[in-house]
Formats: sequence, C-alpha cells, structure tokens
Amino acid sequence: MSNDIDNVTPKGVLLVVSGPSGAGKGTICQMLRDQLPDLGYSISVTTRAPRTGEVDGESYFFKTIPDVKQMIEKGELLEYAEVYGNYYGTPRKYVEEQLESGRDVLLEIDIQGALQIKKRFPEGVFVFIVPPSLDELSARIYKRGTDSEDVIKRRMASAASELTYAAEYDYIIVNDIAEKAAQKVLTIMEAERYRVARTYFIVDKICKAKK
Amino acid sequence: MSNDIDNVTPKGVLLVVSGPSGAGKGTICQMLRDQLPDLGYSISVTTRAPRTGEVDGESYFFKTIPDVKQMIEKGELLEYAEVYGNYYGTPRKYVEEQLESGRDVLLEIDIQGALQIKKRFPEGVFVFIVPPSLDELSARIYKRGTDSEDVIKRRMASAASELTYAAEYDYIIVNDIAEKAAQKVLTIMEAERYRVARTYFIVDKICKAKK
Repeated sequence: MSNDIDNVTPKGVLLVVSGPSGAGKGTICQMLRDQLPDLGYSISVTTRAPRTGEVDGESYFFKTIPDVKQMIEKGELLEYAEVYGNYYGTPRKYVEEQLESGRDVLLEIDIQGALQIKKRFPEGVFVFIVPPSLDELSARIYKRGTDSEDVIKRRMASAASELTYAAEYDYIIVNDIAEKAAQKVLTIMEAERYRVARTYFIVDKICKAKK
Repeated sequence: MSNDIDNVTPKGVLLVVSGPSGAGKGTICQMLRDQLPDLGYSISVTTRAPRTGEVDGESYFFKTIPDVKQMIEKGELLEYAEVYGNYYGTPRKYVEEQLESGRDVLLEIDIQGALQIKKRFPEGVFVFIVPPSLDELSARIYKRGTDSEDVIKRRMASAASELTYAAEYDYIIVNDIAEKAAQKVLTIMEAERYRVARTYFIVDKICKAKK
C-alpha cells in the first residue's frame, strides 16, 4: 500500500520566478536548472523570423501573426507581449502537458507576464525576487553593462513602484546571495508539492483501499 | 541596507500539526522540537485540579469554570473542548505573544481542535498527517497498546471519514517514515516564512530607504 502511494505521480508545480530587472532572477533560475536537470521549461511562440540555427519547436514555436492572434483569442497563451511589432507568448498546452506528466515547470518572466499568468493559471506558484536595496539594484544593472545609461535611469525611476507588485505574488525572496536565494526557491518548490490541492488524491486512495 | 533587512524579525509562523489518532503526529512533533529547540509551544488552560508537581503557567494555566467560560465568550481561546466536565483550551494571547516576538509556534492537536483554530486564526499553517494506509494506522494503534480493543475498533470505524478532513488543511504529509515526514514539515515551515503576508514589509523597507 505505502509503495503504491509513493509511486503515484501527482501533477507538477508551475513555478513562476519574476521580479524587477536586475533583481537576479536569471542567475537564480540558472542555479535551479543546474540542480534540477529534469525541471521542465516553456517554449515560447513568436512571430519574429527564425535566426540562423534556431529550430522550430526547440528555440521557439514560430508562428504567423494571425496564428498568434487566434491563440490569444482562444486563451491558448498563458501570457503574451507585443515587442516592436512581433508577438511573444507562453503556450498553455506545452506547459500543461509537462505538469500532467508530473514534471515541475519553471518560468522566468517579467512582472507584467507573471501577472497575466496568475490570472490565467492561478494554481501556479508565484515567487517575486527582490534586491536587498535599490542601491544594490542600480549597482547590479550598471555592472551587467547591457543597458544604456538612459535605460538604467528609466528602470531605476520605476523600480520602487515595480517592487510593490510583490503584493500580488505568493512568496518574496530577497536576493542578497544568489546561492542562498536559489536554495530558498527550492524549499518553496518542495513545500508546494505537499499542498492539499496536489496531495488530496492520496487520501482518496487510502480510503478506497479500505477492505 | 541588506544587513538591516536580515536583522528584521518578521512575525513567527503558527504551525498546527494534526491528523487522526495513530497517524504519528506526536512522534513528528517531538522530532521537530528536538531539531528546533527554540520552537514556541502553547500552554493550555484547564479547569481540572492541578496534579502533584504541576505548576500553574508551566504545565497548564489552571482556571475556574466561570473563568474559562468567560474566555470562550471573549474569543480568548483559539480552540477548546470539554472532556468529562472539565474544559481544556488554547489561549490566544500566549500564542500571539510568541508569534509577535518572531518565534514560530508548534501546536499538536486533534482534528476538531485544528479546525476550530483555523476558523479563529486562519493565518496559521495547517498540516494534516496521514498514515500510508488504513491497515498501517490500525497496526500502529495496536502496537502503541494504550487503547482498549473497543476504542481501537471505534477509531478504525471512523478513520476513513476522519481522513477526509484533510481537505480543510493547507498541506498533507504521508507519515511512512517519521524522520522523512518531520523533514517535510520543516520544509513547509521554512517556505511559509517567505510567504508574501510575512515578507511584504521588506519591500516597504526597501522602498522607504530610497533617497
């Protein structure tokens, strides 16, 4: 009996890691993937042209604009955004197939995308990564060196108001030391597996096994 | 700045561990206390007479029946029960004082008590311990040897229906091996510390520190 239960695979957890630019969500997600090589991911749809070496169904699902607009209308995208005339989005089906098979799925996404996903998939687990301070956030964005002075200034101007979106999430992790922050996200992921919504089937199983 | 945040003590977590008799909640709670010697606990009120060696405010808070009835009316008990004419209950104040000071509090309690606490203190974390099977539950109660054949039969008759109360809880843990189950409860406890309700003050702090 107890072996039966251990062998049951419950549905996976959709873990959405988000936060302001420069909070370090990318580093944390990379550490999670290194520690959990089986972790599922999402393949986005895009309407932009494939670049050299990009494979359809691996790098992206390449679609036409009418295709993506239809997906949006049918609710087939967990979130989407239009960037310079091209659409990018997260197909619900690909994520759900992995969850159904018992695989946890990690999505690293900006705040607007995460809030869209929360509306359409509230059973996900939403983690907001915050920097230890606004000074540290600014220092990290400068250090990264990928953004112009102008972009950085705009980011910093909106950083404090962006941080208040944390209230919409399930958990907040302060990213002071990335390894520690990643460990905390792993702890959340494990705990969420024991949530009643994901484990109640065990009770059903125990009761049905009654002779 | 980052040191400031680490030094802030958020409110503690009230962890309620419950489940049917024989599921092993006592063993698990003892393991948690051994691993976390700072874990807070509750001192119950009771209207029964002190036994030799029992100290008021340590073993129990000893009260008169009118006192306890007044506490119940004023909502000062998180839960209570009447057993053979005496009242037993969990005073809200003692638990809240510990939580306010940043200490987590562990309560091991039967299902009826846990459900009362959930109504009066929904911000608690409610963990339901289940046996791996009803056969195993029966074997454990027999092995414990503290209950009469009659009591065991009554317990087993209601066990399956008792298990369905799991739906009212936040988390379900299968207690196959007690050490593993205790470890899972510890994981839940840690994750709950990062819940937005307990960590949002950090965001406020970061934003206020803005120059």
